[in-house]
Amino acid sequence: MNGNVNDGINNANGERDFATLDLRRAERTGFPEVIYCAGKTVDQAATIFRRMREAGVPAFGTRAGAELAARVRKAFPDAVYDEVARTLSIGQLGVEKTGLVAVACAGTSDLPVAREAARTAEFFGSNVVEIADIGVAGIHRLFNRLDELKKARVVVAVAGMEGALASVIAGLVSVPVIACPTSVGYGASFGGLSALLGMLTACAPGISVVNIDSGFGAGYQANLINRLGQA
Amino acid sequence: MNGNVNDGINNANGERDFATLDLRRAERTGFPEVIYCAGKTVDQAATIFRRMREAGVPAFGTRAGAELAARVRKAFPDAVYDEVARTLSIGQLGVEKTGLVAVACAGTSDLPVAREAARTAEFFGSNVVEIADIGVAGIHRLFNRLDELKKARVVVAVAGMEGALASVIAGLVSVPVIACPTSVGYGASFGGLSALLGMLTACAPGISVVNIDSGFGAGYQANLINRLGQA
Amino acid sequence: MNGNVNDGINNANGERDFATLDLRRAERTGFPEVIYCAGKTVDQAATIFRRMREAGVPAFGTRAGAELAARVRKAFPDAVYDEVARTLSIGQLGVEKTGLVAVACAGTSDLPVAREAARTAEFFGSNVVEIADIGVAGIHRLFNRLDELKKARVVVAVAGMEGALASVIAGLVSVPVIACPTSVGYGASFGGLSALLGMLTACAPGISVVNIDSGFGAGYQANLINRLGQA
Amino acid sequence: MNGNVNDGINNANGERDFATLDLRRAERTGFPEVIYCAGKTVDQAATIFRRMREAGVPAFGTRAGAELAARVRKAFPDAVYDEVARTLSIGQLGVEKTGLVAVACAGTSDLPVAREAARTAEFFGSNVVEIADIGVAGIHRLFNRLDELKKARVVVAVAGMEGALASVIAGLVSVPVIACPTSVGYGASFGGLSALLGMLTACAPGISVVNIDSGFGAGYQANLINRLGQA
Amino acid sequence: MNGNVNDGINNANGERDFATLDLRRAERTGFPEVIYCAGKTVDQAATIFRRMREAGVPAFGTRAGAELAARVRKAFPDAVYDEVARTLSIGQLGVEKTGLVAVACAGTSDLPVAREAARTAEFFGSNVVEIADIGVAGIHRLFNRLDELKKARVVVAVAGMEGALASVIAGLVSVPVIACPTSVGYGASFGGLSALLGMLTACAPGISVVNIDSGFGAGYQANLINRLGQA
Amino acid sequence: MNGNVNDGINNANGERDFATLDLRRAERTGFPEVIYCAGKTVDQAATIFRRMREAGVPAFGTRAGAELAARVRKAFPDAVYDEVARTLSIGQLGVEKTGLVAVACAGTSDLPVAREAARTAEFFGSNVVEIADIGVAGIHRLFNRLDELKKARVVVAVAGMEGALASVIAGLVSVPVIACPTSVGYGASFGGLSALLGMLTACAPGISVVNIDSGFGAGYQANLINRLGQA
Amino acid sequence: MNGNVNDGINNANGERDFATLDLRRAERTGFPEVIYCAGKTVDQAATIFRRMREAGVPAFGTRAGAELAARVRKAFPDAVYDEVARTLSIGQLGVEKTGLVAVACAGTSDLPVAREAARTAEFFGSNVVEIADIGVAGIHRLFNRLDELKKARVVVAVAGMEGALASVIAGLVSVPVIACPTSVGYGASFGGLSALLGMLTACAPGISVVNIDSGFGAGYQANLINRLGQA
Amino acid sequence: MNGNVNDGINNANGERDFATLDLRRAERTGFPEVIYCAGKTVDQAATIFRRMREAGVPAFGTRAGAELAARVRKAFPDAVYDEVARTLSIGQLGVEKTGLVAVACAGTSDLPVAREAARTAEFFGSNVVEIADIGVAGIHRLFNRLDELKKARVVVAVAGMEGALASVIAGLVSVPVIACPTSVGYGASFGGLSALLGMLTACAPGISVVNIDSGFGAGYQANLINRLGQA
Repeated sequence: MNGNVNDGINNANGERDFATLDLRRAERTGFPEVIYCAGKTVDQAATIFRRMREAGVPAFGTRAGAELAARVRKAFPDAVYDEVARTLSIGQLGVEKTGLVAVACAGTSDLPVAREAARTAEFFGSNVVEIADIGVAGIHRLFNRLDELKKARVVVAVAGMEGALASVIAGLVSVPVIACPTSVGYGASFGGLSALLGMLTACAPGISVVNIDSGFGAGYQANLINRLGQA
Repeated sequence: MNGNVNDGINNANGERDFATLDLRRAERTGFPEVIYCAGKTVDQAATIFRRMREAGVPAFGTRAGAELAARVRKAFPDAVYDEVARTLSIGQLGVEKTGLVAVACAGTSDLPVAREAARTAEFFGSNVVEIADIGVAGIHRLFNRLDELKKARVVVAVAGMEGALASVIAGLVSVPVIACPTSVGYGASFGGLSALLGMLTACAPGISVVNIDSGFGAGYQANLINRLGQA
Repeated sequence: MNGNVNDGINNANGERDFATLDLRRAERTGFPEVIYCAGKTVDQAATIFRRMREAGVPAFGTRAGAELAARVRKAFPDAVYDEVARTLSIGQLGVEKTGLVAVACAGTSDLPVAREAARTAEFFGSNVVEIADIGVAGIHRLFNRLDELKKARVVVAVAGMEGALASVIAGLVSVPVIACPTSVGYGASFGGLSALLGMLTACAPGISVVNIDSGFGAGYQANLINRLGQA
Repeated sequence: MNGNVNDGINNANGERDFATLDLRRAERTGFPEVIYCAGKTVDQAATIFRRMREAGVPAFGTRAGAELAARVRKAFPDAVYDEVARTLSIGQLGVEKTGLVAVACAGTSDLPVAREAARTAEFFGSNVVEIADIGVAGIHRLFNRLDELKKARVVVAVAGMEGALASVIAGLVSVPVIACPTSVGYGASFGGLSALLGMLTACAPGISVVNIDSGFGAGYQANLINRLGQA
Repeated sequence: MNGNVNDGINNANGERDFATLDLRRAERTGFPEVIYCAGKTVDQAATIFRRMREAGVPAFGTRAGAELAARVRKAFPDAVYDEVARTLSIGQLGVEKTGLVAVACAGTSDLPVAREAARTAEFFGSNVVEIADIGVAGIHRLFNRLDELKKARVVVAVAGMEGALASVIAGLVSVPVIACPTSVGYGASFGGLSALLGMLTACAPGISVVNIDSGFGAGYQANLINRLGQA
Repeated sequence: MNGNVNDGINNANGERDFATLDLRRAERTGFPEVIYCAGKTVDQAATIFRRMREAGVPAFGTRAGAELAARVRKAFPDAVYDEVARTLSIGQLGVEKTGLVAVACAGTSDLPVAREAARTAEFFGSNVVEIADIGVAGIHRLFNRLDELKKARVVVAVAGMEGALASVIAGLVSVPVIACPTSVGYGASFGGLSALLGMLTACAPGISVVNIDSGFGAGYQANLINRLGQA
Repeated sequence: MNGNVNDGINNANGERDFATLDLRRAERTGFPEVIYCAGKTVDQAATIFRRMREAGVPAFGTRAGAELAARVRKAFPDAVYDEVARTLSIGQLGVEKTGLVAVACAGTSDLPVAREAARTAEFFGSNVVEIADIGVAGIHRLFNRLDELKKARVVVAVAGMEGALASVIAGLVSVPVIACPTSVGYGASFGGLSALLGMLTACAPGISVVNIDSGFGAGYQANLINRLGQA
Repeated sequence: MNGNVNDGINNANGERDFATLDLRRAERTGFPEVIYCAGKTVDQAATIFRRMREAGVPAFGTRAGAELAARVRKAFPDAVYDEVARTLSIGQLGVEKTGLVAVACAGTSDLPVAREAARTAEFFGSNVVEIADIGVAGIHRLFNRLDELKKARVVVAVAGMEGALASVIAGLVSVPVIACPTSVGYGASFGGLSALLGMLTACAPGISVVNIDSGFGAGYQANLINRLGQA
């Protein structure tokens, strides 16, 4: 089998060549390509899932809507959909889960992003603990969960508004913190910009930041780091 | 015939003078005016297509919605609509296709913009090859298509997110690269701003940039350059 | 005496009318006008100090440079200059100091702004305690000073970078917090923008925000609130 | 009863742990936690109202939509909904109303934000007077209401567009002004940015600012200040 | 004489063709071209003054530094330099001064911009009255000068910080207001952006805005309007 | 009659005091208050029209939707609605139309804003000529209409995208140009920001700028200037 | 000789490996690497010039300051420095000059950027004509030079402020326009942002844009296009 | 010894309390506090170095200028200063160097930031390899060094301009990439914003980002991750 197939799929619009699947990505980087479903039509995304399945590569999609999930699950009943995280997967990666990633989030509204981070880290081989609603406005809630945070090899801190959760956690633990700003908030949140800037300029060291609302990016990076601890 | 007609069209709202067609643009610049359909009512756009047809000028419209396409195709069955590119054309420009423009795009979600670029370059007189889904995250895909890219007189690089495709291509080919940022992405993409800034500040020389999502602008400029190679 | 004098001062450049002193501001709002020295020439600022002195109104200036301070202190030896805060004052407001304003700051670099807040609140009638270098990266430092913070009627929280200090304090005290972002930081701090946005979108209620680096604005507002507690 | 309950609610999606209620917040800061309903599903928000009710804590929610209000009022007929302010409350805080907060707004379009500020200040223990439609374009309207403004211990100034209302009021009264920018306006208002920047840079001292459209933030802070005047 | 001369000046750097003087601009628009001295070397600016003098066209330059002024005044002793406004002129426009332009400014720091507006309007044919330091923080100062403002045919309102002066004046007079934001302020003033946005979104009609710190633009436009009143 | 009525209207939501009509504005500034209908409920806007009618003041509203227009026209059959401009008026201002305002616009998509400017200037007492679709991409179209432009006392230049129309016109006429940026465009137009910045920094003098899409602001200011020419 | 040398240069600071020269770039893209001197110490830049000279590759540097130029010219007397353009070159590219690039600029202050574009295009093999000071404020100046513009195979349009020059030229010629925004201007120019956005959103097709102040980028791209016309 | 000392230092300005050293940070997080020297006076920074030395804690400072370095090295001759990285350290952390961090940078101008990252990772316990000048404009340079990159446990990618280096590397390696944008570039680089946005929106997973120019932040995070691989 060729590792780089352009499969000339013809959809209803007569589109060709819309996707050049990177089926050998697993050999190169250790992990298969991920399907970002937003911005693709349901037809396009479903076709990619099918092709990866046919190639025997486990498939993991993010930002998957309900319609796509229904379509794929009809074709592949073993597909798993998390409607909070909006992740859709078929098959299992051939690695054992290892270590521990803690996914902390500031408020209830940040949950979908946190869940996406958790599902991603799990799919790619990490044990995950979710710690919800520990925003710094009631900082004792964070201290109540500090022991759990300290057991992890890497912490994902998910927060909108001012994003202060990352700073406070990074001052309390000795492991890397992956900060994920969310677009939760209004007004001067400017769609997550306030949290993003706050996390980038955090006064505590040991923080690196992923894109706004990118639970996937945070979970993927956390898994890479967590598995490093395994070797 | 007067080259500059204000045709006093009266539509349902009693609007007058909404368009001063530049029918002599072809004499002045070598190419007829293009119809930007967004921001015009279906009535306005359809009327302009009709007037250009009546004046014997081939018409090419961008950002044409399905309703407008249906209306125009009903009146002029030879009109051609590409629903991915959302381009709508009547008639042929009196030039022979020449040279080669390569339209490369980073991901499946960038296809509509890339297709608009391709359709535009074709309408105005260029042979076009589309090379889809060669984003730099899997850079071997780009190398697999490098020979095709090198055959072109000009390359259009269409990409959202960080827009790195333009930089990498411009370091590998010896022809001009027209970079077209797209609004594909989320969060810190800020509607295409990240790709736009990335392309403007690209470390490789030989790149110039058009507006975000302006497949038309990229295809038009690429055609001008490509045809220059013809003379 | 007329409460609103345009005193037709002629300086070396032949300028007239550069300032319309608001000498009756004290009657109207309870406090005299403050002199913002930046953006004024030393001549202009010195003249305003002199006129207020002559009118028997106590004068308080901010952003006063060393040259201005020297000039004014030569003329009025009882003038007081704080070179960290860059405040310059002549005379005393006829009120007794009351209550308590706590001015907390995140890092050593925030000190000049914090000091300006402290000097301002003192001049206008508040007792002040400064609590320096309690940024959230080492949150135990904040907890060590929490008792002091809790004694105040109002807390001024001065911080640059991500400005998380305001959020954390507001979750721990029951009095109003006046948040003052500073331009301390670099890169994505964007001159204080990150701290400003962070403070505006703080997840804890009970915070209101003044301009970047406006120790004066924070101290003035804190004094108004503190004195309200007195009545 | 434990002051910090993670109540393991299971909703239709099998979500757990979505909220860690801060039921002891009242002991710590004097006031119970507030429910920000936007960004929560109706299920999540309704569950939180129920839990606070069951814990005997008065509940106050902001940004509550009509569907949530109907759901909660069906379960708890004594719930009170203000459809202009979009606030929803159950129960009464055990404090007597005191002092006076004046909520001034510039135009009719600013009313929902102003009303949210008023309802918030009332719930947390302040007497409130609303003064609508006194924008500076017709400044005599403001002067006609000046006596009312001067009776308050703190003024909330709510305005969109250029937000000049805060500057003008702060120059006329001797009490703290809490400025609340709104997203009212278009074009260069940039979603409230123009009002926000204007209020932060106001030439009059005695102003501090809350987030765009945060009637809640303004009302909460105004109440803290107003009650301080009580002690 | 040719109205459009490219005079092939050779300066020390061997530059040629650096300026294509628009000597017939007066015929076309009624007024001669103005020299924007910033961004030009002293050599370039001085040469342009000389050429206009030689062509018998009165010359008016803005942003002229002291070195340029000295150079030009040495060559043409009748040149007039205003070091506050930084305007430099030679000769008189052949029109009689007419009408009245009122130039109002908010604070002492705004004076250089206001003075540039005044000098510009005077040079191009308007009587001017300057009204300094009437910012809205002490609004009675504005009311004290209202009669003077009302005598003008057009008012220029110069202000930094939040720029509220324009809104308040436009609500009180019946003539056009030209608003000129200044970069006076710090922090969230963002170099005049706050004043600019405030003036563009002012709630009072009858305001139009020029560039930040463009006293010239304001004075020029005010003169055009004022002279219109003359006809 | 009291010039400043707060009429205690009760609508379906039990709102009171939502509007303090400025009925004496005409005495103060020469023109009645204008109703900005966006951001008001249909009930609120309709009530204000009714009250102005009852007070005998001619009413002019902008951003009026079809539902409001239908409601008001049902009550007052002499109301006039322009569905392109979205202006709604009742009654006539007691002034004779005078002079001439030219409203030029760059493209068909800018027409609604241009029409709002035209209707506003007409209502307040100006003769108006509209000159559509003369954008600088085909600059001969502008030259074809130059004679018409030169007959006006003031020109309103309406353009989106890069807004170059204002610069070019101001270099060709001797009267004031009021530039009105529109949000027409996409990508780097950023909702009209590109046109706004372009007009503010135009290289030609004699331009002042109103808010993005503010046909009303442009038309109102143009009328003030045009009528000045009358006196 | 190895095409990719890391030459382990040791400078005074003991730096190693600061530059990996891309000496085979000429083989790959047809042109040698260019030295961007800003951001390099004089030592680093001078060393790179020397190494390229020793490798027999013609060297071309941009943003070269006077000190660097003096140093290099002392070592290599045949080095050529243009102090307006701030370009520094040693040796000649082995191609014959061909075709014609027209470099047009709007104002005298744009000259350094225009000159950099001209020098770059010349070095890489184009004949160049400079057309200075033809900004659209006096549009007849542009028409006076239109014949020259029309002789070129590609036009570089250099302009600051609103950057309208590119739009106007592109509407008049039939060849590609490379637009180069400059940081000339003040206030709302925001360091070239206004010109950049204006050029990206220009209403005329046939424009692509390079970075602000990147005369090099414009000249390089223009040369690529111009030489294409040669083949 | 108390772990949290406020040492009441009195400097020439009579400042007190400017720093609350967090001497127990090492116990809490495994690493001592780092001294950010920018924004502190030389006196303040030097005093902090002395206090840490006296407390027996190894000290590491960033953004240290030459004057500070000279002062500290005079007092403590074993202090080590890197003038490219501008790091200053006294003493050694009691850990053995382990693993491998690769610090890759795009261009010579990025070296100071890359060097800061390298020095930081070394101080805190990592072996480091620097790979300079492998920007994507000449992508073969990156491929030439790929084997070295692949030996590392974590890669730091330092780049300005469009920051594409991070995307390309992350597509080629299987370990975490810490991306560090730099302010290298001009125009649309906007002080590093373009690189920052590009890295945040990179199309390849496995990237997280630190603040602009924060070599320290990148090196610290890389060390945490690298040492995790050790356990």
